[in-house]
Amino acid sequence: MSILLGEKEYFKGVGKIQFEGQESDNPLAFRFYDENRVIAGKTMKEHFKFAIAYWHSFCGSGLDPFGGPTHHYEWDKSSDVIQRAKDKADAAFEFITKIGAPYYCFHDLDVVDQDNDAVVYKKRVETMTDVLKAKQDASGVKLLWGTANLFSHERYMNGASTNPDFNVLAHAGAQLKGAIDATIALGGEGYVFWGGREGYMSLLNTNMKREREHFAQMLHTCVEYARRNGFKGKFFIEPKPSEPSKHQYDFDSATVIGFLREFGLMEHFGINLEVNHATLAGHTFAHECQVAADAGMLASLDANRGDAQNGWDTDQFPVDVYEWTEAMLILLGAGGLAGGGINFDAKRRRNSTDMEDLFYAHIGGMDTIARALIIADKITQHGEYHRLKAGRYASFDSGKGAEFEAGKLKLEDLFAIASEVQPVQISGRQEYLENLIGRFI
Amino acid sequence: MSILLGEKEYFKGVGKIQFEGQESDNPLAFRFYDENRVIAGKTMKEHFKFAIAYWHSFCGSGLDPFGGPTHHYEWDKSSDVIQRAKDKADAAFEFITKIGAPYYCFHDLDVVDQDNDAVVYKKRVETMTDVLKAKQDASGVKLLWGTANLFSHERYMNGASTNPDFNVLAHAGAQLKGAIDATIALGGEGYVFWGGREGYMSLLNTNMKREREHFAQMLHTCVEYARRNGFKGKFFIEPKPSEPSKHQYDFDSATVIGFLREFGLMEHFGINLEVNHATLAGHTFAHECQVAADAGMLASLDANRGDAQNGWDTDQFPVDVYEWTEAMLILLGAGGLAGGGINFDAKRRRNSTDMEDLFYAHIGGMDTIARALIIADKITQHGEYHRLKAGRYASFDSGKGAEFEAGKLKLEDLFAIASEVQPVQISGRQEYLENLIGRFI
Amino acid sequence: MSILLGEKEYFKGVGKIQFEGQESDNPLAFRFYDENRVIAGKTMKEHFKFAIAYWHSFCGSGLDPFGGPTHHYEWDKSSDVIQRAKDKADAAFEFITKIGAPYYCFHDLDVVDQDNDAVVYKKRVETMTDVLKAKQDASGVKLLWGTANLFSHERYMNGASTNPDFNVLAHAGAQLKGAIDATIALGGEGYVFWGGREGYMSLLNTNMKREREHFAQMLHTCVEYARRNGFKGKFFIEPKPSEPSKHQYDFDSATVIGFLREFGLMEHFGINLEVNHATLAGHTFAHECQVAADAGMLASLDANRGDAQNGWDTDQFPVDVYEWTEAMLILLGAGGLAGGGINFDAKRRRNSTDMEDLFYAHIGGMDTIARALIIADKITQHGEYHRLKAGRYASFDSGKGAEFEAGKLKLEDLFAIASEVQPVQISGRQEYLENLIGRFI
Amino acid sequence: MSILLGEKEYFKGVGKIQFEGQESDNPLAFRFYDENRVIAGKTMKEHFKFAIAYWHSFCGSGLDPFGGPTHHYEWDKSSDVIQRAKDKADAAFEFITKIGAPYYCFHDLDVVDQDNDAVVYKKRVETMTDVLKAKQDASGVKLLWGTANLFSHERYMNGASTNPDFNVLAHAGAQLKGAIDATIALGGEGYVFWGGREGYMSLLNTNMKREREHFAQMLHTCVEYARRNGFKGKFFIEPKPSEPSKHQYDFDSATVIGFLREFGLMEHFGINLEVNHATLAGHTFAHECQVAADAGMLASLDANRGDAQNGWDTDQFPVDVYEWTEAMLILLGAGGLAGGGINFDAKRRRNSTDMEDLFYAHIGGMDTIARALIIADKITQHGEYHRLKAGRYASFDSGKGAEFEAGKLKLEDLFAIASEVQPVQISGRQEYLENLIGRFI
Repeated sequence: MSILLGEKEYFKGVGKIQFEGQESDNPLAFRFYDENRVIAGKTMKEHFKFAIAYWHSFCGSGLDPFGGPTHHYEWDKSSDVIQRAKDKADAAFEFITKIGAPYYCFHDLDVVDQDNDAVVYKKRVETMTDVLKAKQDASGVKLLWGTANLFSHERYMNGASTNPDFNVLAHAGAQLKGAIDATIALGGEGYVFWGGREGYMSLLNTNMKREREHFAQMLHTCVEYARRNGFKGKFFIEPKPSEPSKHQYDFDSATVIGFLREFGLMEHFGINLEVNHATLAGHTFAHECQVAADAGMLASLDANRGDAQNGWDTDQFPVDVYEWTEAMLILLGAGGLAGGGINFDAKRRRNSTDMEDLFYAHIGGMDTIARALIIADKITQHGEYHRLKAGRYASFDSGKGAEFEAGKLKLEDLFAIASEVQPVQISGRQEYLENLIGRFI
Repeated sequence: MSILLGEKEYFKGVGKIQFEGQESDNPLAFRFYDENRVIAGKTMKEHFKFAIAYWHSFCGSGLDPFGGPTHHYEWDKSSDVIQRAKDKADAAFEFITKIGAPYYCFHDLDVVDQDNDAVVYKKRVETMTDVLKAKQDASGVKLLWGTANLFSHERYMNGASTNPDFNVLAHAGAQLKGAIDATIALGGEGYVFWGGREGYMSLLNTNMKREREHFAQMLHTCVEYARRNGFKGKFFIEPKPSEPSKHQYDFDSATVIGFLREFGLMEHFGINLEVNHATLAGHTFAHECQVAADAGMLASLDANRGDAQNGWDTDQFPVDVYEWTEAMLILLGAGGLAGGGINFDAKRRRNSTDMEDLFYAHIGGMDTIARALIIADKITQHGEYHRLKAGRYASFDSGKGAEFEAGKLKLEDLFAIASEVQPVQISGRQEYLENLIGRFI
Repeated sequence: MSILLGEKEYFKGVGKIQFEGQESDNPLAFRFYDENRVIAGKTMKEHFKFAIAYWHSFCGSGLDPFGGPTHHYEWDKSSDVIQRAKDKADAAFEFITKIGAPYYCFHDLDVVDQDNDAVVYKKRVETMTDVLKAKQDASGVKLLWGTANLFSHERYMNGASTNPDFNVLAHAGAQLKGAIDATIALGGEGYVFWGGREGYMSLLNTNMKREREHFAQMLHTCVEYARRNGFKGKFFIEPKPSEPSKHQYDFDSATVIGFLREFGLMEHFGINLEVNHATLAGHTFAHECQVAADAGMLASLDANRGDAQNGWDTDQFPVDVYEWTEAMLILLGAGGLAGGGINFDAKRRRNSTDMEDLFYAHIGGMDTIARALIIADKITQHGEYHRLKAGRYASFDSGKGAEFEAGKLKLEDLFAIASEVQPVQISGRQEYLENLIGRFI
Repeated sequence: MSILLGEKEYFKGVGKIQFEGQESDNPLAFRFYDENRVIAGKTMKEHFKFAIAYWHSFCGSGLDPFGGPTHHYEWDKSSDVIQRAKDKADAAFEFITKIGAPYYCFHDLDVVDQDNDAVVYKKRVETMTDVLKAKQDASGVKLLWGTANLFSHERYMNGASTNPDFNVLAHAGAQLKGAIDATIALGGEGYVFWGGREGYMSLLNTNMKREREHFAQMLHTCVEYARRNGFKGKFFIEPKPSEPSKHQYDFDSATVIGFLREFGLMEHFGINLEVNHATLAGHTFAHECQVAADAGMLASLDANRGDAQNGWDTDQFPVDVYEWTEAMLILLGAGGLAGGGINFDAKRRRNSTDMEDLFYAHIGGMDTIARALIIADKITQHGEYHRLKAGRYASFDSGKGAEFEAGKLKLEDLFAIASEVQPVQISGRQEYLENLIGRFI
């Protein structure tokens, strides 16, 4: 069976990636990721729903603030907007099927060029929606989530849904409609909001209260529209503290959850967490996962990693098994992702210019996460880690502790108890637990 | 009239600090702070309610993780617990009255030593409450807020209200009762919760969900107790992202507001913001003020500053007129602090060992804030800054923009508008606004 | 006299900016900067040698990693490479003369487009050198320093002088020759090396030792060439810790000075310090100035500011009088800049899209620095600050302390002295000094 | 054979830790560390020279800036200074021998209390030197390095060797003499300088140039003394960027190497690198290792880890195999440590209060490093990693590239070469290399 859906083969000489096991020397083979392997009652395919990011993998040029493109694509050669978009879709589905990912994700403007005219824009997105639908049907690849790019066009320089100019907000609405329509038509399982410029460059010229209210209003407007048009999936908000804005309103999970609760949006939304955004916000990835999980909103993940020495979003591919083992422990504890999957929001380095580098990057990332899941499952089965953690709170499971939890004790009661009992020193045993986790890695 | 309430004079050779005006060369005189000066309809005294922090100014020893005490106090010489506490109170009120601050703030354990026995602890705090009450009456100095130190005793090494051991939580409750009782007895205008160890050292051994629920339960318990016993003031939560914990649950204003909303605690609480905590959390002080003000919760301020190159709470005295001018603009816009004042949660450097250094430090801090208020008022009166900022949002004041704000537009309506109108590029004018503010400094 | 050298007027409606004094309401006038005002024996013009950065002010498009250009220039319209370059030069000299800056700075590729062919490149730069020479002669504006852009072209993705491929290094050499030739021809007072990609993206694929040796060899090669061709000025290295590289070899002043000393390059070089680079490296700007000054290498300054909450080079215009007052105290102490001046390596925000914003930005920046110089001079004249600082070290000015400085004491001598004398505690008086500085601001 | 050298057994119920292999469930056994295992031609014992830090492990009280001691030691009970010091030494050697570490490290004031009187101080240190000598002889444990604590005593609040007061500097000299004498007497293989307060709290009151010169003078004085008294080992400087100082002069490896070169101290010194200090300085640990190795100064390591979200020295035990694998690759490349070993400058968490926690912590740390060495050796033997890295620089091994390295090409030659050759794009292959390393972990 041919896995190529287009006429050309863009990624030459690479067949479908295989699972080969730990001893293999083939750098283009998976050691840990095997989509059919069952862990904790589900296949890896079901646990992860690995998705390829259209923007980084097929649009990313290697451009950075100090230099121009280094990645030049065969599929970008046509001067015809639609033909170029189709060529890119060919390349995308070739890669996605070769790497063996069951899902992909996109922004509206990843699949076809922007146009200032909202009607032209709409037409283009609709045309490409048909193209992508056919490719999905032919390949079995599915859409994890869609989204609208409301940050690249210069009209959004002061924000999109939070722009002080209503006319800009209206254009944001037009794109949101286009991206939601496409997501519904393509059976997307979710829809993401990442508010790259929904924040401020300077608080001096910003009415933060009004801007946040506009943002909430736009979310309500989108939810109403999508539900009315048959969208059954989850909406996700993706937190990030800053960049390109000086401050982004969706700073971190706790901020986003507080915002959704304030504006009555909890039931429709989950959190889409990105590793690098967590660390930029001053948190570990595990922390952000736990905050979201505790609110029942750990919905989807953007897999990548940051650089602890660089203060911007480096979007590197995952390599840290520790970081992901902690996340997988939380994921397993939460019973899986609530409505989403794991999208590789990661990019080859600007100077990783071979086409094969795109494969190496994804293989390393998928393998890291697969390995982490295997380890987290072993830790869970072993049981000691969870027993120790739960045991620390035993004093609240019955007696006076349970009464406190139930709201039955007054401050005088606590004083009376304290007058009679001196607490015994109980070690937190952090090093022991770190070693316990390490023993499984 | 003698301003000394004790028998000894601890801060020799310094009388009451005077307002002397801008030309004065006297480094022990205020240039800008004059408690009776009226700005925007209120005296400076009313605007600021400047408070002296008992812990830094009268207990601070200069100890740091790499070395022992450098500040040795005459009032710490007695071997009798209560006598030593009284001597310290003498020194405190001598300084507070000499510097001319109308308020002070304390933790229970600032005014007298801890004791493991809850009954002994209670007795000691009650004794000192009487002493402080007498000093307040004699001097006219008032209590801005009280609080309990739930982080210094070793029993709190795994948290206080969030400790996994109920017995420790009970002792926290006993101290909370003691500190609330003292605050009520002393007419404290507010009561602060700073959760230094209410967080985690390692997520690996922590049930964050259960710990946060315990914290909320304890706040409910305290509110019930305090209201039942006649406390009319506000409760304040003071955000901080970490230190001594690896992560503190009250990370920043947005997190705290989300927490209070989640657990039904909004009506009783406001935010007590600290400059250095804002910057440790990755925010400007102005940002944290605006977040709190937008929620109607900008209640009280802890005045200090951090060091942008050092990643811990340096608690230095304020010197940055820009930082405070931005805050004062927000404060004036919010109609003042909702229930609190400005407490100097700042300490002399470890190597600032002269008694006079304590005066210089507070004079510089109070003057910085006074100057900022004067500037913010001038900017407000000048009007252009506020006009420019409000004008940016004019498209939402009427027409389609106003309809959007009112929730009357559907996504199709936004598309239709976008199809007809191209936005005009509108500069954010950040540099102009920065210069405009700078012109008044 | 017409200040316009081109045919078109690009910055319409703005004449030469005037000094108007502190009371002026004109936002397009200087309050503090007056090029003829004499401070500490020199005019402001001589102290600062303010220079306009060709790249930010005339090439900057507002592009960032998340969005395209927002600044569109009339002078960028021609499809002819040289005509477009000439139009840009017209605009540049119109702005420079209107703002009243005596100097400018450029990269080779700011003034004309790159070409892969080294011969075409050379020709283009030579053509534009003639154009710029004529403009300099007509306007009296001078070149502070030139430099080569060795980071934007994709060939430099793995470094320029530190590229593992010798062929790339050769092209870097060709551009260095072009930029040095232009600098000599235009009478440039200095020549700058900023090694944007002279570092690594990953240490895993990098031979740091060999790369640093290549860098040193290239500097020797350039010095030899430039001296042989009549260049009398200073070479400057501009430190930056990272970005776009993960790590840049010229991390900070101390690292650069160590490198120059190691490779025998001290005599030809000075340091060109940038504020935002200092803070990204974990230093204050004052610290970097002091390190360079203590080595006699405080040669030139790139004026801008960073954002303490954002971890990348924001290159904002200076507004912080404190930051610059500390720098100006060091500058005055060092007897001025050793061979360079103050270049505005700063850019309007991406959303500051009015042409006037470029004026506001520079006026604010120049005024901030002028104000800081005035303050630093007042502090110096007042004398107390310098007396206090010098007085702290008095014990080394004579007696045993002086003997120690002279290397005449052995460790046994120190023991003997310590056995006899107990040090007296001496306050560092930090808060007093901060207030003292603040009193002049 | 009894491993206990004192009368009491402080660490009860724990025998000598054994190597048990990967399958063991015993959390008090090593999986990877086996002192006799040969890797790359040397035993692990020879590679690492693991040392236990006297201060953290036997003096550390758990105190932090927000709370008092949580670790209470049996050996700290005696009220007699020397008896208490002897009891502590008993405990230390019990632990060191049980854990199986061949070395230890100490500050003068770890082993016995400070006294203001230099003569009393000297006597105490001499007494304990005899005690420690006897214990070394009895156990075979050796001293890796000694050092003087010049930061804890209040006299050093303004610095030690860089104190503005010569009398304080003399006391620093007295302690340096004491610590050097002890190190020589105990056969210490090295001597460390960590300059905790050799820096500044405020640049405003600091003459950095003079302070650095004093520091250099003191180092010369110490070298002269130690050599004259028979010390044959290396002196190490341990970089750290700040804390407790706002800025520490020994910021990072590059800064220290530059300083040693400037003051003619290179031949006697090496670098003692600490992981957490590297990351606080904005570097990876591998980077600091490489900088030191390239200068031939990678001499000794302080093993620990920092917390990427906390901006202070957390001194946690190593757990990150990646971080150490990168370091071990560099170590193997450099032919081992130049004169030092690996000291655990790490502390149990404040809330890790069981005596067993000290074992878990060290076992985890030693195992992490042992595992990393095994991996690094496998990577080296496999060869592809080193071949790929070296191959990138092949163009400099012969031909024009080699001529450039030899200084034989002029800038005109580079231009001529560039005129003829266009570089081919060569991928940096970062993701491939990361996966390659990951494949061995």
